[in-house]
Amino acid sequence: MSKDVIERLSRYRSVLLRLKGLGFVRVFSDNLADALGVSGSLVRKDLGQHGIRGVRRGGYTIDTLIERLTDVLGVSGVLKVVVIGCGHIGSAIVSMYGGRRHGICVVAGFDIDPQVIDTEAAVPLYDVHELVEVVDREEVDVAVLSVPEEAAPSVMDMIRSSRIRGVLNFTTAHLRSNAQCLVHTIDIRMEIEKLFCMVKMASQQDAAADTDPHGVT
Amino acid sequence: MSKDVIERLSRYRSVLLRLKGLGFVRVFSDNLADALGVSGSLVRKDLGQHGIRGVRRGGYTIDTLIERLTDVLGVSGVLKVVVIGCGHIGSAIVSMYGGRRHGICVVAGFDIDPQVIDTEAAVPLYDVHELVEVVDREEVDVAVLSVPEEAAPSVMDMIRSSRIRGVLNFTTAHLRSNAQCLVHTIDIRMEIEKLFCMVKMASQQDAAADTDPHGVT
Repeated sequence: MSKDVIERLSRYRSVLLRLKGLGFVRVFSDNLADALGVSGSLVRKDLGQHGIRGVRRGGYTIDTLIERLTDVLGVSGVLKVVVIGCGHIGSAIVSMYGGRRHGICVVAGFDIDPQVIDTEAAVPLYDVHELVEVVDREEVDVAVLSVPEEAAPSVMDMIRSSRIRGVLNFTTAHLRSNAQCLVHTIDIRMEIEKLFCMVKMASQQDAAADTDPHGVT
Repeated sequence: MSKDVIERLSRYRSVLLRLKGLGFVRVFSDNLADALGVSGSLVRKDLGQHGIRGVRRGGYTIDTLIERLTDVLGVSGVLKVVVIGCGHIGSAIVSMYGGRRHGICVVAGFDIDPQVIDTEAAVPLYDVHELVEVVDREEVDVAVLSVPEEAAPSVMDMIRSSRIRGVLNFTTAHLRSNAQCLVHTIDIRMEIEKLFCMVKMASQQDAAADTDPHGVT
């Protein structure tokens, strides 16, 4: 499965969970297509490739569709994660997902600061040197990394020596995936910069269109 | 410029800023290529298309390269943003970028909770109903949206009636870009799910390779 397919299947599932919350029972591929801004035939192809077929005129049953997508994506049950680095972003994620929200559960946090460490908290916060032991005991495969940039490489070494196989990297450090551990980076600073760049380009296009009454730009 | 090109130019710039911080003066396209995991010829093409050429054997001067990329991306000066919704993620971003860090400056936050509102704070926090007026006065074009999902559509209406032209959306609401306002979504929950899915697929591939001594899978 390519990254793009995983992305779309995740998004279908996310839309379906929300529709279910609204009391909907059935959905048509064209509705999902509208929600994602893709074509209906792509939705049918994505689902069909995983053996999921709708009923002509009847669409898909939302419950069945969620079940099948959950299965295909392998995201059933509780997804246990740890958060390494409990500063601004890290503690935000501990607060958001500490209580098993939407199937995700932060089972532990780690930090280097003794003042932050609190193994008795609802989500226990450990010294980062206990990482290998704790993730082993809790059987956690995925970590959120939100340490300062300069600490990222050495913490990444600790992660690689643990059972962790996937890292959601919020640091601006350039960390690479390898066969043993996948790294996916969310660089908030760069996302903000990119947005500025796109806003600027859109404004320039508008300005060009404004000065060109025939719209031939 | 396509999104992919903007993405790469932003990443070149980010690497260069870090190299400069380490005291480096010159860089070769192949170094940038290594850092991003792309080919050297793609780096040279990306830069060449914006009139940036290196010196054979000498590479590029980092300072000049940063200057040109900053110019091309339109991210010079201070990038002023507001944060709408000062819960977990919102206040993390206010804390991270409240002090003009890396050229980004959160000039104001907004919330609906009177207990959070504090117009005397270092980064003033206003009632969300003052959004249009404040962004006008502060001349802000980009907002970070981090309100609860159910509040997102109505807040998005307020945003569209303001001068805001770009939104970095941390909510799980499906908000769409239109000609007046670009929306870029970072859905942390979905990113965690996708990571689980990819880790699972990688494990299955490993398992398949393990049971196949000839590696023909």
